[in-house]
Amino acid sequence: MSSGPSRRRLLAGAGAAAAAAGVGAATGYLARPAATQTARPQADGAATVPFYAPHQAGIATPAQDRLAFGSLNAVDGATREDLRELLKAWTTAAAAMTNGKLVGENTRPYAPPLDTGEAIGSPVSRLTITIGYGPSLFDQRFGLAGRKPEALAQLPPLPNENLDPDYTGGDLCIQACSDDPLVAFHAVRNLARIGMGVVAHNWMELGFGRTSTTTTSQATPRNLLGFKDGTRNIKAEQTALMDDYVWVGGETDQPWLRGGSYLVARKIRVFVENWDRDYLQDQQNVIGRTKAEGAPLTGGGEFTPPGFQATAADGQPVIPPSAHIRLASFEHNDGTRILRRGYSFTDGIDPQAGTLLGGLFFIAFMKNPAQFIRLQRSLAADALNEYIKHTGSAVFACPPGLRWDQHGGQHWGDTLFS
Amino acid sequence: MSSGPSRRRLLAGAGAAAAAAGVGAATGYLARPAATQTARPQADGAATVPFYAPHQAGIATPAQDRLAFGSLNAVDGATREDLRELLKAWTTAAAAMTNGKLVGENTRPYAPPLDTGEAIGSPVSRLTITIGYGPSLFDQRFGLAGRKPEALAQLPPLPNENLDPDYTGGDLCIQACSDDPLVAFHAVRNLARIGMGVVAHNWMELGFGRTSTTTTSQATPRNLLGFKDGTRNIKAEQTALMDDYVWVGGETDQPWLRGGSYLVARKIRVFVENWDRDYLQDQQNVIGRTKAEGAPLTGGGEFTPPGFQATAADGQPVIPPSAHIRLASFEHNDGTRILRRGYSFTDGIDPQAGTLLGGLFFIAFMKNPAQFIRLQRSLAADALNEYIKHTGSAVFACPPGLRWDQHGGQHWGDTLFS
Repeated sequence: MSSGPSRRRLLAGAGAAAAAAGVGAATGYLARPAATQTARPQADGAATVPFYAPHQAGIATPAQDRLAFGSLNAVDGATREDLRELLKAWTTAAAAMTNGKLVGENTRPYAPPLDTGEAIGSPVSRLTITIGYGPSLFDQRFGLAGRKPEALAQLPPLPNENLDPDYTGGDLCIQACSDDPLVAFHAVRNLARIGMGVVAHNWMELGFGRTSTTTTSQATPRNLLGFKDGTRNIKAEQTALMDDYVWVGGETDQPWLRGGSYLVARKIRVFVENWDRDYLQDQQNVIGRTKAEGAPLTGGGEFTPPGFQATAADGQPVIPPSAHIRLASFEHNDGTRILRRGYSFTDGIDPQAGTLLGGLFFIAFMKNPAQFIRLQRSLAADALNEYIKHTGSAVFACPPGLRWDQHGGQHWGDTLFS
Repeated sequence: MSSGPSRRRLLAGAGAAAAAAGVGAATGYLARPAATQTARPQADGAATVPFYAPHQAGIATPAQDRLAFGSLNAVDGATREDLRELLKAWTTAAAAMTNGKLVGENTRPYAPPLDTGEAIGSPVSRLTITIGYGPSLFDQRFGLAGRKPEALAQLPPLPNENLDPDYTGGDLCIQACSDDPLVAFHAVRNLARIGMGVVAHNWMELGFGRTSTTTTSQATPRNLLGFKDGTRNIKAEQTALMDDYVWVGGETDQPWLRGGSYLVARKIRVFVENWDRDYLQDQQNVIGRTKAEGAPLTGGGEFTPPGFQATAADGQPVIPPSAHIRLASFEHNDGTRILRRGYSFTDGIDPQAGTLLGGLFFIAFMKNPAQFIRLQRSLAADALNEYIKHTGSAVFACPPGLRWDQHGGQHWGDTLFS
């Protein structure tokens, strides 16, 4: 899709930087990451996003078009040391892949390939890899109970959910985002492959269309409801809001998490056949915006603030009391905000009903999962609940970014385990 | 992803061409297609592929990057006239969508939207929509038994398959291909929506990475085995081969199918965890090519013809007797060829095993399904069978392309029903 440098060409040009660095027999030889590059903000197949940075990439990064998300559990018998070594190996592999390089060169004919290879030739397309730790990782298995942040816990029961255990929880998560879905898939597959014997997939989901913007320069995309999604999302340029609502700060009881964030994932099925038969004005009343323009029902354009107080001639609110944008708004929730970063997904067709198994793979980042809980409880009265159901759920603590200096790079887990 | 004109801008510029044309109350008002445009061969978000042409688009068209594929069954009680009207409505909608326009303008507040809207703002990205008729469509329900091509029948039992009934068969199929997966999904969703009350989804699959080339100008992509796929595929420029192996000609007993093709779909699971532990040389022996370059094991480059007769010093064939490229080759099958047009897919994780439910969504076009049967029987001895399993299957007869002249456009079904 692009005429930019391919992964293969980037690899060939990496020269000495691609010299193999041993990271343990279980994971083979991984390419050492080259120096951090500057991300180009325009979508460009060859663009890379810096891996070493104060915060993990894939949170404030302008949302890429496609997602691969993996939830993994440690296998029985995995030890603390296994987990620590795995996080090191993942760091090295993620630094290479996000820099447009293979996990390793396949030079040994009688060993399994170090890179599964399907993304060779595919431009890196702004790949980011973001990891998180689930509450279950801090049980007795790995000696991490004392490192568990108080705010990290399974979510309580919430309105309008019917959770499938096959799509719930996880010890670890990998969020891979790229403008090329094959590149995102390749990243999750290779990290899972590297983890064989230590972790195994719990569940995985691909997102085929982004439903949020995280910078003011991006156009607002549309979700499977056909409505623009993310108009009032926090934007990365709003650094004060990012500090107030997204990045974990000094308030945490666990210093290793400062500069990180909490990731809440919700698999939200949309009953599209029902929605598609609803009439346009009702769809707009359910959301509180016009479908074409995305303007609030109180007028103006997409970015005009909604007039939640405005009433019509009959005295009723123009934006209905049950409208989604009203109940989800910070004005309705004591200022509570989150950074949404979701994607449309589908698992195909329900074979009994012939209806679409698809909807929104909701991802949001926040300073404390209590923010999501607050908003979701507000949405108990959401008119949209007639058309959606939460069917999967997970929460993870995402550590801060990693440093690269003259001594080399930090690894995921360094601060967690130290 | 592109700075080209968006669907919205194309729509706004369509002017009189977008005037609504009634196609029956069940489907609402659909936009009338503008005159056929010339396709641009380079991947470009704004590029359109001509809808009206001697053959349906999406067969010889340079393979787009992403796929949405739907198999649909008629619902109980649907009549011959319902089916005929549906095919007309689908034609109008497909002509509009592939031309970068909405299915219809949403101007009536108290009616369901004519277009579900999620692709507004997404460049059309070379969208093609290809339909096919399954063997079951020609049973007693629609009075089409006399129109059934002799070659159109359920496939016989074949080697290395364990078919899931939930991913098998279908009265009708929709193949939507685009460089943007949201645009492809939108096309299938909207055709299914238009068909509500007449047809319902049987199954659906998204393909997130193409695994074939159909023109000499395209780089060969890689499948989830990490190998290049499609090096020896028929290319659209090989018009004699296309006539000999892909397009239905005068040999058919059903004149309505002349200029069409048969589509064979196979959902092929790849056991990637097993494959990823196999050593490089064995992977190469299984396929018969090198992994990095895609050169046959007998040497040269990717496009060097394989030396199937060459033997090593020990007298054994260099390309093993069980190598995939040997058994699948036309040299091994009395010259039999097919046009492959497959995509990588995933359905997530097997919750019991923790393994990937993914692989190759194989699509191939051919003059007669006997070609696929011949090749698949040859592959009974394929070394690759240790790592793959066919889990879904369907066959469809794809009618020829449609004409657009001063009297307007032909519709799908015109020749089938006349």
